[in-house]
Amino acid sequence: MANTREQLVAATKELLWERGYEATSPRAILEKSGAGQGSFYHHFSSKAALAAAALQEAADDMRCNLEPILHSNAPALQRIRDYLTMPREELRGCRIGRMTHEPIIRQDETLRDPIVAYFSYAEQELATVLAEAQREGALSENINVDDLAATLLATVQGGYVLARGFQDPERMHQAIRGALTLIDSIEQKKEV
Amino acid sequence: MANTREQLVAATKELLWERGYEATSPRAILEKSGAGQGSFYHHFSSKAALAAAALQEAADDMRCNLEPILHSNAPALQRIRDYLTMPREELRGCRIGRMTHEPIIRQDETLRDPIVAYFSYAEQELATVLAEAQREGALSENINVDDLAATLLATVQGGYVLARGFQDPERMHQAIRGALTLIDSIEQKKEV
Repeated sequence: MANTREQLVAATKELLWERGYEATSPRAILEKSGAGQGSFYHHFSSKAALAAAALQEAADDMRCNLEPILHSNAPALQRIRDYLTMPREELRGCRIGRMTHEPIIRQDETLRDPIVAYFSYAEQELATVLAEAQREGALSENINVDDLAATLLATVQGGYVLARGFQDPERMHQAIRGALTLIDSIEQKKEV
Repeated sequence: MANTREQLVAATKELLWERGYEATSPRAILEKSGAGQGSFYHHFSSKAALAAAALQEAADDMRCNLEPILHSNAPALQRIRDYLTMPREELRGCRIGRMTHEPIIRQDETLRDPIVAYFSYAEQELATVLAEAQREGALSENINVDDLAATLLATVQGGYVLARGFQDPERMHQAIRGALTLIDSIEQKKEV
């Protein structure tokens, strides 16, 4: 059995994904984790501190999913396609992105830090792979890879928003297909 | 002075945008609207019914902002660019998109209806303009306009997510710039 701190973090991860920050009460965390009443403030100074630890873990999980895709041996632009089409829980939404509309995000930097860190990581990794595609000759040097990385990340984040809004995973897939078409359209084919 | 029903809807619109559904209490709506305690259930059967009316109004406002841009006399692809670069309250987020991560959205169709209606409207309008761009010869006939419309809408929605996450409007602008670059790259120039 995991220790109490881990149980609290695991329960909070799930509740934040399902309900968000505001709607997750310390009581619900205690109930879901099975931890004793005194354990909460023994391990964490506040709900925000526990939530920040949970978001940090969620971001680490997501990073672990991205790493092998973005660092595979495939050509760079194929790795971008693999990122766009990787399996996602469309209807659950993004564990990080879904937090951004919580009002507390504007005030609480502890809670924003893991979000900023994950988005920065994803954008930088995508930009690095796009720059590799430029060196491989598959992508024009005129394209700003930082901007395009932000567009790809936004497409995925917005894809979750559409899937949630329609309650239909296909709405995310459609946005992803459009992005794939754009990638196909700008790819510079090597002369044979 | 607006009538009580209008006051309730206007207050709810603001609170949903700022806090979301779960965190908006009937009490907060009454306080913000200045309406009397009995008026809430006189005009609306539930918080969800009032919220649905408020979201409907918010969606109507957004439609009114889109209409002149997508139906201007500019060439079709320019109208797409105008859509991407129209002024937005990046840090407040999208009034419709921000609702999609509320748990109640999965169960309550009354509340989901205005969201589905707005996203459907925006996607169809964008697809129509993209099809015009194809007829004008500015866009390849090989491009699926429904997919591309979804990608553009997702880029905007995801742009809000990034701006909120970083608490920096520039993060949304960056995603939009990337999309503009893609549009530039796929535009078919007329031969002179």
